[in-house]
Amino acid sequence: MSDSALASFHAVIPAGGAGTRLWPLSRSTRPKFLLDLTGNGRTLIQQTWDRLVPLVGPDNIHVVTGAAHAEAITEQLPELVNLIIEPSPRDSMPAIGLAAAIIDRRDPDAVIGSFAADHVIADSAQFAADVYQAVAVAQTGKICTIGITPADASTAFGYIQTGDTLQVDGAPDARKAVRFVEKPDAVTAQQYVDSGSYVWNAGMFVTRTEVLLSHLAQLQPVMRAGLRTIAQSWDHDDRAATLDSIWPGLTKIAIDHAIAEPVADSGGIAVVPGRFDWSDLGDFAALADLVDGDDALLVDATGFVRHLEGKTVTVIGIPDVVVIDTGDALLVTTREHAQRVKEAPAGWQRRGRPDLI
Amino acid sequence: MSDSALASFHAVIPAGGAGTRLWPLSRSTRPKFLLDLTGNGRTLIQQTWDRLVPLVGPDNIHVVTGAAHAEAITEQLPELVNLIIEPSPRDSMPAIGLAAAIIDRRDPDAVIGSFAADHVIADSAQFAADVYQAVAVAQTGKICTIGITPADASTAFGYIQTGDTLQVDGAPDARKAVRFVEKPDAVTAQQYVDSGSYVWNAGMFVTRTEVLLSHLAQLQPVMRAGLRTIAQSWDHDDRAATLDSIWPGLTKIAIDHAIAEPVADSGGIAVVPGRFDWSDLGDFAALADLVDGDDALLVDATGFVRHLEGKTVTVIGIPDVVVIDTGDALLVTTREHAQRVKEAPAGWQRRGRPDLI
Repeated sequence: MSDSALASFHAVIPAGGAGTRLWPLSRSTRPKFLLDLTGNGRTLIQQTWDRLVPLVGPDNIHVVTGAAHAEAITEQLPELVNLIIEPSPRDSMPAIGLAAAIIDRRDPDAVIGSFAADHVIADSAQFAADVYQAVAVAQTGKICTIGITPADASTAFGYIQTGDTLQVDGAPDARKAVRFVEKPDAVTAQQYVDSGSYVWNAGMFVTRTEVLLSHLAQLQPVMRAGLRTIAQSWDHDDRAATLDSIWPGLTKIAIDHAIAEPVADSGGIAVVPGRFDWSDLGDFAALADLVDGDDALLVDATGFVRHLEGKTVTVIGIPDVVVIDTGDALLVTTREHAQRVKEAPAGWQRRGRPDLI
Repeated sequence: MSDSALASFHAVIPAGGAGTRLWPLSRSTRPKFLLDLTGNGRTLIQQTWDRLVPLVGPDNIHVVTGAAHAEAITEQLPELVNLIIEPSPRDSMPAIGLAAAIIDRRDPDAVIGSFAADHVIADSAQFAADVYQAVAVAQTGKICTIGITPADASTAFGYIQTGDTLQVDGAPDARKAVRFVEKPDAVTAQQYVDSGSYVWNAGMFVTRTEVLLSHLAQLQPVMRAGLRTIAQSWDHDDRAATLDSIWPGLTKIAIDHAIAEPVADSGGIAVVPGRFDWSDLGDFAALADLVDGDDALLVDATGFVRHLEGKTVTVIGIPDVVVIDTGDALLVTTREHAQRVKEAPAGWQRRGRPDLI
């Protein structure tokens, strides 16, 4: 990797999503990425920052978020220069596309990598090595995603089917991405894992801005035009007015559907299988896999417990229990039902308790 | 029933036992009988008082308890005259025996009825009618227990096998008590219930003091002598010194083992099957049967929830859950494990948290 290639490498961190499966730890006003869920003193977005700064430097990190969380992010990331505030959530394509358009205007040779604000990666050195491979692939004009070798036949993630190895200098592990598939059912997930040729889609995309924006011009021409107009105004007085007039009309769509799926079909996507331990902390089962629960008295029981200081928790006769006590809200469920926790904030919303969600 | 017979009728309320199966609602410092578990504004011992006052009058009610609860009982029962404080817990035989000895010295014709401080009886009128039958039987020289017609094949209670109907004026339902049996296993309990001749042992004994003390003189002569000495000192200056010297040496034994079982064998015990709704509120399953839980969001779940004001509880995917949150202690279990809740305070004791038990 040349120094100039790295100097043009930028990181984009879309910071959205409440993490409703981690309710009541995560709330709409205090979403997952703002929480220190792993208990190491750094929130998830701070950990993401810590992982990316050595790769791109603080000036090349761009966080895209909603107005509600801008202040908290600024507090948590005091060195952050590039905060892109969305007037309203339009899903990941407009968010990443806007960052790409802004960066592209400043640096037409830029390569961007998009990384979620709320994932956990244990091995930063391995992560860096895999990202460098992806940057090398991106320089060839492909969009390169970093997939995750499946730890099990999870139904909580989308999968990417990998194909032949690509011959790219500096990226010995890169393969063709054959197709992107949505979260499968359990039987299909097992087939994917057994085949050995599928990886989890962790939403990490590395691409030249020019390449991404060209695909966007083909596939979502109205969005591309809108983002161009916004980017042109970005460093000028009319930024707010332009954003307000254009943003609400942009198609609400995920980058997977807008770009990854159609471009994979035409052979434009590559995959580097990530060799680092990764978790999306998507639910309490994932959290329990990663960190110890708080002290509790478990009698003929197992599970994951979180409670406030000064509280004691006793569980009798329930295997794989999940107990989360935040003071105002107590959640009791089991690991098996971890994906259903999102029904809790929805239920309290229906009961007229928006303060809880 | 003659007026003189009722004038000599006294109630004894042994108020002991922490109710560890209702932890963390009940604590050693705030046992079950001091709690308003049914939410009607009266604690269990107050409800017991309310039920007995119409039968014997306030001056003829004797509460036997430990020093730790004397003050709370005095507060809860301001009209109570006869509070008998045990220096240490010696189980029910010394407690009831001491009350009997004290009452017998004051009124040799007395009939006493012993009633637990922490049971719930819905129909006071029916209870009174059944007690009057038991008093009529007691006048004939038998010890008369009031049994409970089994609602199900519970393994949480001892049983009494009933025999032939006795021919006692004023007690048409009285039968011979054939034998007392300990808490049975599930198969045996079902056999008892199917036979139609067993009732639950609710620990209610009605007897002439003279009869009880005669049996005691036969079966536990040292205890009888000790209780006589204490009773003689009761209304004198040496009460405390006498209690302190004799009480610790008394055999620690339940009235069932000391009197009921052996006397039943020799035909000296009768049973009146109680026709009132009764609960010992022995565990959270019993409590849930009797009262509604607090408001909670139950998603694919059922159960019983108690929490503090200002708290919200959500349960997902656990049938028959029991959630009890008292602020300092949270218990999560299921109805099936209700009898095992006593392991919780025991566990915290072992962990060096006597403040929780």
